[in-house]
Amino acid sequence: MSIVVVGSVAYDTVETGHGGVTEALGGSASFFSVAARFFAPVSVVAVVGVDFKPEHQQFLANRNIDLRGLERRPGKTFRWHGRYHEDMNLRDTINLEMNVFEGFMPKLLPDQRRCDYLFLGNIAPELQEGVLEQVTSAKLVAGDTMNHWIAEEGPALKRLMPRLDIITLNDEEARLLSGEHNLVKAGRAILRLGPRSVLIKRGEYGVLQFSREGMFAVPAYPLEEVVDPTGAGDTFAGGLMGYLARAARFDESALRTGVVYGSVMASFAVEKFSLDRLADLTWEEIDRRYRAFIDLTDSHHSRWTSQ
Amino acid sequence: MSIVVVGSVAYDTVETGHGGVTEALGGSASFFSVAARFFAPVSVVAVVGVDFKPEHQQFLANRNIDLRGLERRPGKTFRWHGRYHEDMNLRDTINLEMNVFEGFMPKLLPDQRRCDYLFLGNIAPELQEGVLEQVTSAKLVAGDTMNHWIAEEGPALKRLMPRLDIITLNDEEARLLSGEHNLVKAGRAILRLGPRSVLIKRGEYGVLQFSREGMFAVPAYPLEEVVDPTGAGDTFAGGLMGYLARAARFDESALRTGVVYGSVMASFAVEKFSLDRLADLTWEEIDRRYRAFIDLTDSHHSRWTSQ
Repeated sequence: MSIVVVGSVAYDTVETGHGGVTEALGGSASFFSVAARFFAPVSVVAVVGVDFKPEHQQFLANRNIDLRGLERRPGKTFRWHGRYHEDMNLRDTINLEMNVFEGFMPKLLPDQRRCDYLFLGNIAPELQEGVLEQVTSAKLVAGDTMNHWIAEEGPALKRLMPRLDIITLNDEEARLLSGEHNLVKAGRAILRLGPRSVLIKRGEYGVLQFSREGMFAVPAYPLEEVVDPTGAGDTFAGGLMGYLARAARFDESALRTGVVYGSVMASFAVEKFSLDRLADLTWEEIDRRYRAFIDLTDSHHSRWTSQ
Repeated sequence: MSIVVVGSVAYDTVETGHGGVTEALGGSASFFSVAARFFAPVSVVAVVGVDFKPEHQQFLANRNIDLRGLERRPGKTFRWHGRYHEDMNLRDTINLEMNVFEGFMPKLLPDQRRCDYLFLGNIAPELQEGVLEQVTSAKLVAGDTMNHWIAEEGPALKRLMPRLDIITLNDEEARLLSGEHNLVKAGRAILRLGPRSVLIKRGEYGVLQFSREGMFAVPAYPLEEVVDPTGAGDTFAGGLMGYLARAARFDESALRTGVVYGSVMASFAVEKFSLDRLADLTWEEIDRRYRAFIDLTDSHHSRWTSQ
């Protein structure tokens, strides 16, 4: 049931109305793996520079995240500097330094190639394809993307689509990829590109899932305070894939439960900067919020009447 | 189980990306009563001018909506002219003519005063208070309001609050009334003003409910096309109150089911202009969409596994 994640490990500088952090641990592979590790073993494929700090390596290693595939190359680690608006659905990129991430050519170790679960973080679709070529027998493949690749690498992305079980994207990206403004039309159009399931992430408005079995809509867990939305999408994917790997099922029911666990994990991630909240999170807290989430969305209020 | 609604009957001119209508039947009491009438008897308290067309009177009367309280006064019927942005959460008021609605002093008939269920549509809080004074024994009172009354009549509105079982408002109004930007804080702050339940309407993002028993979040039913959002909030309230009157219960479970029925009714209302979609709606369609809605939001997908 081991999960391989291919993505970025980065240093994030983030400014929000609640303050900020400078060069904190971030990147899709970091958020994903820390979230998924609550559910199943995780193995990372990523690249960092020589400036990657031992304390961050240790932080991930302490959580039993397999870092044999974390390549260290001459140069600096990927850096992102972002500033959120008061409406935290909006943010500006102040600075972006690809650094060693620029020449990232993911190469899986022999045992990683035999993984059951694969998450392709947001990298160029051709690199995502290259990873898929190396994997021999994955039971479940999920991929993330972004507006840049949709605009610049559309054909490669569309080639990739039928090979994904799950594609995750945000609402703006779904509109761009499908050419449809309406999200129901957009979700259905992307489903026709080939993935078994389309997950549209809407930030504070939750997630819309499209599959052949129908639509599933969940709100985001309503929080009194959102400190830093960075990494919420990758944390969501980590909770989702982690749950599916642990359940070892991929039917509609498992997928929906996975979406709830993903939403639960993301709701924690945004409560503090960087990975700070995920770092001190306990399974008891996850379980408690999962139950609260089920109660929050239960139209029959069956928690009180039938359980 | 009869419901009394106090509100507006209006002529709406609406422009959207899908076209428009001129002087179509609208107003909170119209949308509310047509929606609620699918569930329970409804009696209207409103005012129209001498220009109110017999065909519109007939349309409401044909649905067995009690119009003895629809006062006809010298002058013209309330008129609203609005234009929606491409993002239909936004609209501009092009023109507003209060006309006979300006001097509206709602006066209930003797049998209306003994109603079990009362909906106070969006009118001045002092008028809403005046209606409450006339009612002797309502089992359930719900009220709607708007930013204008929050800004101009705050003290009267806050006086009214503890006398309401349910207050409905949109997200912007909830922020204005509570002084909290975060909707969880806003909902809880409004709950402390006295109502038993606070329903924050978020348009295409659904509804957040706050009560002493906790939070409930439902998405809006995802539609491929929204033609005209006018009246969605009052239609929602009509479905909610209609269901509660029919169920004759007001526990958390009934309230949640009512919120789903309200959301279902609103999802129909926006499919066509004015009351056009509600006009040709059948109970079979409501029932089918209610089931689809339950399936849409069911994290356990129990429809397939346990029913």
